[in-house]
Amino acid sequence: MQGLMQDVPLTITHLFDRAEKYHGHKEIITATPQGVERTTYGQWARRTRQLAGVLDTLGISADGRVATFAWNTARHLELYFAAPCTGRVLHTLNIRLFPEQLTYIVNHADDEVIFIDNSLMGLLTPLLPTFERLKHLVIMDDSGAGLPDQGALGVDVQVHDYEALLAAEEPIDFPEITDERRAASMCYTSGTTGNPKGVVYTHRSTFLHTMGAMMVDSLGARESDVILPVVPMFHANAWGLAHAAVATGATLVMPGPDLSGPAVAKLIVDERVTVAAGVPTIWMAVLPELKGKDTSSLRSIPCGGSAVPKSLSEGYREQLGLPILQAWGMTETSPIASVCHLDADQTQLSIDEQAELRTQVGRISFGVEARVVDPETLEPQPWDGESSGELQCRGNWIAADYYDDPRSSESFTADGWLKTGDVAAVDERGRIRLVDRTKDLIKSGGEWISSVELENEIMAHPDVAEAAVIGVTHPKWGEAAVACVVKAPGAEVTEASILEFLDGKVAKWQLPKSVVWIDEVPKTSVGKFSKKDLRSEFGDVLMNQ
Amino acid sequence: MQGLMQDVPLTITHLFDRAEKYHGHKEIITATPQGVERTTYGQWARRTRQLAGVLDTLGISADGRVATFAWNTARHLELYFAAPCTGRVLHTLNIRLFPEQLTYIVNHADDEVIFIDNSLMGLLTPLLPTFERLKHLVIMDDSGAGLPDQGALGVDVQVHDYEALLAAEEPIDFPEITDERRAASMCYTSGTTGNPKGVVYTHRSTFLHTMGAMMVDSLGARESDVILPVVPMFHANAWGLAHAAVATGATLVMPGPDLSGPAVAKLIVDERVTVAAGVPTIWMAVLPELKGKDTSSLRSIPCGGSAVPKSLSEGYREQLGLPILQAWGMTETSPIASVCHLDADQTQLSIDEQAELRTQVGRISFGVEARVVDPETLEPQPWDGESSGELQCRGNWIAADYYDDPRSSESFTADGWLKTGDVAAVDERGRIRLVDRTKDLIKSGGEWISSVELENEIMAHPDVAEAAVIGVTHPKWGEAAVACVVKAPGAEVTEASILEFLDGKVAKWQLPKSVVWIDEVPKTSVGKFSKKDLRSEFGDVLMNQ
Repeated sequence: MQGLMQDVPLTITHLFDRAEKYHGHKEIITATPQGVERTTYGQWARRTRQLAGVLDTLGISADGRVATFAWNTARHLELYFAAPCTGRVLHTLNIRLFPEQLTYIVNHADDEVIFIDNSLMGLLTPLLPTFERLKHLVIMDDSGAGLPDQGALGVDVQVHDYEALLAAEEPIDFPEITDERRAASMCYTSGTTGNPKGVVYTHRSTFLHTMGAMMVDSLGARESDVILPVVPMFHANAWGLAHAAVATGATLVMPGPDLSGPAVAKLIVDERVTVAAGVPTIWMAVLPELKGKDTSSLRSIPCGGSAVPKSLSEGYREQLGLPILQAWGMTETSPIASVCHLDADQTQLSIDEQAELRTQVGRISFGVEARVVDPETLEPQPWDGESSGELQCRGNWIAADYYDDPRSSESFTADGWLKTGDVAAVDERGRIRLVDRTKDLIKSGGEWISSVELENEIMAHPDVAEAAVIGVTHPKWGEAAVACVVKAPGAEVTEASILEFLDGKVAKWQLPKSVVWIDEVPKTSVGKFSKKDLRSEFGDVLMNQ
Repeated sequence: MQGLMQDVPLTITHLFDRAEKYHGHKEIITATPQGVERTTYGQWARRTRQLAGVLDTLGISADGRVATFAWNTARHLELYFAAPCTGRVLHTLNIRLFPEQLTYIVNHADDEVIFIDNSLMGLLTPLLPTFERLKHLVIMDDSGAGLPDQGALGVDVQVHDYEALLAAEEPIDFPEITDERRAASMCYTSGTTGNPKGVVYTHRSTFLHTMGAMMVDSLGARESDVILPVVPMFHANAWGLAHAAVATGATLVMPGPDLSGPAVAKLIVDERVTVAAGVPTIWMAVLPELKGKDTSSLRSIPCGGSAVPKSLSEGYREQLGLPILQAWGMTETSPIASVCHLDADQTQLSIDEQAELRTQVGRISFGVEARVVDPETLEPQPWDGESSGELQCRGNWIAADYYDDPRSSESFTADGWLKTGDVAAVDERGRIRLVDRTKDLIKSGGEWISSVELENEIMAHPDVAEAAVIGVTHPKWGEAAVACVVKAPGAEVTEASILEFLDGKVAKWQLPKSVVWIDEVPKTSVGKFSKKDLRSEFGDVLMNQ
């Protein structure tokens, strides 16, 4: 028996329509070096419809890729909707990728146009000759420096001024999106090995992910919110907050290029922000700046991208009365896949127990399924809070594949689950704790060693500034752990002192077989430890043992 | 360009899975005449899987209709999931329908089995011989009276005891629902004219409606909630709260048969309910019972089904500090289509202005679209807060059609919108105020008269107990208004006094052309004014004028 309900495609246009129809009076605020700029959803919607006309006028294909290279601004939000609402595909370029990665993804995605903030031209200009099929470069003159001379760029690409293009267009009606599985946007992962991999989101996936972000047990976006996405719009959809703000009519505060502690803190206080979302390093820098300020407007500080240190969350709880809200996800998961709210009865636990629970990433979101399995056998692991395995995900806002990429088969199981590469333990209530990355697990003598756990123990040593643990080939054990340690400034510390410090904290066989001293842990473009580099440098250090 | 996201059917099974996997320790509480019964989602999930086995054992067709005739109880919740999760279709019979309507819908839906609370057998037993294809009657012995003798029923239908059937089954795995548009449940409207009309919900529509109920600007269901659906599970899906509770793992408080003011108030206080939902008459009876009680757990009192009087909402605000949350919907809209939250800036208005805004039904929910048009020309009406027209809806949880019913064409427009029959005015922000039912509008001399507005004015007369205004044929004006008035107990009042009272409150031409005195306003099965009866009695009262 078939049902008799209406069948209306789940589209991003629906989000846009709500902001335009119902919330025209609400504000979008952008911080710029020249000061704070204010517009409304009403003006934004009109400009977005003009921008849709620009895309037609420029001759961008019906499903052409529209790339952005931009900070979080109201203009970027125009692009976020004009591209998908006209059936085209928004491609957010991560400004922090390495040059050769940018060249790869612009060409791989077949970008026809790049919309770029003038203040970022210095990063992209040298790469223009490497973009094979780019036709247009549209400059959003945020710096007020004016457009570069077309000839000086030395390429055929047509250069335009964003505001001039808009001024020449009337607002247009969007074409109807009839297929909810049509591509809406794409984002490449900032992987540490090889070329970035492209994830192509659909109207359906974005619509459902946005609804997810509006659920209380997720981010709980609402009309009365004032949302500050410090997380970049070029990084996994700004965690869905730009879409959720438009969908709910929440006031949106765009931080522009200055993501320093003082700048972010000032926006929170001045604009009475209710939700501020960013990675841990942002919140480390912001906390001292909020001291003595009125932060009573804040109701939530979602944080993810890397593990949220307990001390950071507790620092916010002590100073603001509001701990950090840890969330987990990745480019492949749109990204919000779990948010760590405590259960009703857990809010009765002691402060310490609550803080410990907040080091989890929480329960997988409604709409998504999770399983934790042995990475080799796919055997499900018991939910005892201790047994760990690879976290795998399934759901409508989880990638099924990478765009035109033979490496897809490595990341998805035969039965269609995403292999997240995260190692997790799940407790009896299905709450997830991340313990490692699968590629950073070390299999030594048939047993798994968690490099992250070892790193954390080593970094607790008072004379250690930073430490990265890698698995390297060992003639007897197959693999063994090597600790790459940065000494604290001015400190003297020996291998023996490190091993003694670890004694009793980890099992004997888990101890590093060697400590090597380095000046700095190499980092990826998004600031994570790049163990690939360490492995290539120290991979054979144990071969003589 | 097609997207590359996973495609997982949106099913009710996903809701069930979450309660079973993540919230097994949370409670479902049922009030019974014998006292409060407590179970957990864990036990409930196991029993629901046993019930799924029962449906197989009874030989219910793969897409067979599984009817319920039951109060809000944990057992009813087992049926809510066992039927759709096995691919069958739950059919909730409204116990308040008239006998001939029940006969019609059981036969029209092809019900193969009815699950009935023993305490309701008296209503259904006389009708059993009229059910043409019913095979099984399963009795949930809530009264402890024991099963009736099969022979005494005088029909072929097999009679079973619910608990005995369950005890004989092991929990089973649900089959996979691969088509999200598969029928999941059905409910017939309690219309005032002709036979009820069937609405067939899908897995997709229920999934999306449930997500809707979890959004903050809707009902905002969450894990920490303790939800009391006073609204019956046989009436438009208990407004989605049963599904939302299961999806979020909220504690669920089922009121059973006693919906009196004292009983409902006691549940709210004893179980520390956070969300209690019901029609206005329930809340009128509950308010005095809450006096002096600890109601601090309550965060929301959703109310709909008929207009929420301003005085009722203000009564709750004054006594509890929490006004009523007006919501709007109908069987055809799953039902939640709008919820009246104030906008952020509106919470700064005066108490009176806020109270006035709460008489609106709010903005149409995310996921649904609304338009207000002239009921004859379909011309959109301006959003000025005054101009009114028919409210029409579109969206994934709005009916497309009635089940096997030639009357469908009367209720849907050619371009696929549901004609709700409600007359509404929309303000500049898209907030909706209901002013009437289209069928209760009176077109007099080419102008529209709102019968509801006239009724409200007349009912404000101190000597009037109740009044219903109907449009009747008028030789000169086509139609004109007639007021059917019930005098207050012991009061004397004349037509002249009524007309004088209305003077200055409504336009001269809107005045009733006649007042007729009645003992009581006839009501429908759900307690609404039945103007059909009044029209047939007084339809020609003006023909001599």
